[in-house]
Amino acid sequence: MVEILIAEHAGFCFGVKRAVKLAEESLKEAKSRIFTLGPIIHNPQEVNRLKNLGVYPSNGEDFKEGDTVIIRSHGIPPEKEEELKKKGLNVIDATCPYVKAVHEAVCKLTEEGYFVVLVGEKNHPEVIGTLGYLRACNGKGIVVETLDDIKEALKYEKVGIVAQTTQNEQFFKEVVGEIALWVKEVKVINTICNATSLRQESVKKLASQVDVMIIIGGKNSGNTRRLYHISKELNPKTYHIETAEELEPEWFANVKRVGISAGASTPDWIIEEVKNRIKEICSGQLVS
Amino acid sequence: MVEILIAEHAGFCFGVKRAVKLAEESLKEAKSRIFTLGPIIHNPQEVNRLKNLGVYPSNGEDFKEGDTVIIRSHGIPPEKEEELKKKGLNVIDATCPYVKAVHEAVCKLTEEGYFVVLVGEKNHPEVIGTLGYLRACNGKGIVVETLDDIKEALKYEKVGIVAQTTQNEQFFKEVVGEIALWVKEVKVINTICNATSLRQESVKKLASQVDVMIIIGGKNSGNTRRLYHISKELNPKTYHIETAEELEPEWFANVKRVGISAGASTPDWIIEEVKNRIKEICSGQLVS
Repeated sequence: MVEILIAEHAGFCFGVKRAVKLAEESLKEAKSRIFTLGPIIHNPQEVNRLKNLGVYPSNGEDFKEGDTVIIRSHGIPPEKEEELKKKGLNVIDATCPYVKAVHEAVCKLTEEGYFVVLVGEKNHPEVIGTLGYLRACNGKGIVVETLDDIKEALKYEKVGIVAQTTQNEQFFKEVVGEIALWVKEVKVINTICNATSLRQESVKKLASQVDVMIIIGGKNSGNTRRLYHISKELNPKTYHIETAEELEPEWFANVKRVGISAGASTPDWIIEEVKNRIKEICSGQLVS
Repeated sequence: MVEILIAEHAGFCFGVKRAVKLAEESLKEAKSRIFTLGPIIHNPQEVNRLKNLGVYPSNGEDFKEGDTVIIRSHGIPPEKEEELKKKGLNVIDATCPYVKAVHEAVCKLTEEGYFVVLVGEKNHPEVIGTLGYLRACNGKGIVVETLDDIKEALKYEKVGIVAQTTQNEQFFKEVVGEIALWVKEVKVINTICNATSLRQESVKKLASQVDVMIIIGGKNSGNTRRLYHISKELNPKTYHIETAEELEPEWFANVKRVGISAGASTPDWIIEEVKNRIKEICSGQLVS
């Protein structure tokens, strides 16, 4: 029998898994139409699956009193949430707890007298949400996307630094170091989520223990390609697929152990499909 | 007439100037022998000048009750100061206020629950003094001299970072960035003194405004050589000397404006000697 091992951390991060689960649970009690404010994840298959169950992505234009609205894992500004509630909508907050921690951090830093630097992408929904919380607690601050952006912060004596949860670590490090040089007092609350690095670490552990590694995820997904390259270096028999249909039986000839990992936008059920397809392929083969 | 301009920041830093002044003032009220605990500055001429006035460098072995002891700008551990006082010595604390700020910072960080990282040289007298203050306020911490040293700090959730006042900025930046990546919360109090960078900025300003630049300081003094190179780039007629005797009259032929700067170990009176010698040279010449 072939043994199939799934990497300890693979596919959806904790926050996205939780948001999808909340969406599914909302269906059980649904007496109204259910929407997510924006697509719940950057994966059309998963969005479609939820649509078929009765959870529709929306930009908010078609909301009516009594509808259920799910705030996705990125979070939204508090004034936006207030607006939804005022419209008589039933709001389910699926904001990732790690993102909530950023909202809390910017207000804690504000209370302690720090000017806030949020290292992240100016147009990212998570950043827009966090800036809303900063405004709501009367904080002052900026988003830093390039090193040039830090200038404004250098006017202040006390600067507090946080990051978008998916921030690149190398750039965060540079920003913190640079600001610490110019400013009297800096407080850093590292709010970067380790989902990406855990996923990579798990692939490293698994790749050398198996005969074949299968990496699932969009061919144009940066984080999936990175997993593929990490695995390929440790195990030349690494394959990158988007769906179970792409699995080739010859990859599994005389194979005893197969490892699977997946990029951040891959739901568990796609991982399961791949696992089952591999089992099928291998059960129809003679394993030495 | 030749015009001689001295760089706004040149020679001794604020802390060393202050220590020398305190030593000179102690002479006025002296009813006892006066010592400095260690040489007051890394400049034999200045140490000799003070010795001739009656202030002797000492390692402490020859102290007797009633003697006056000056703590130099580097500072010392509080238990060491206590020991001096118990011996019945008259202690004059010439610790640089910027170094005192580091002592206060490590205790403030300790109170706030931070494990302390002091970026600096393990055997530097200033660092040894600061570690004494950290012990005295029951703080925990380490000195970080190479990036390898940070490992111990990564075990803690809250790390507070300060620096030896003469710390290299680039390394400080790297340490802060690296620790901020690995630790949940980091507070940085930048205790690096800007004397060195002010001295360099002043040379930059002056060099291009004068016909000739004279840089005074030890030929093997790193900070003096750096001043020389900065000036030389902006003004090819830059000369590096140790004393007034090295001045060559031909450097000042047809010269209207002369600029002077000096490294960190050069006392004002040596700068004055150079200035006066240049005046003498130029007054004996025809200026076009």
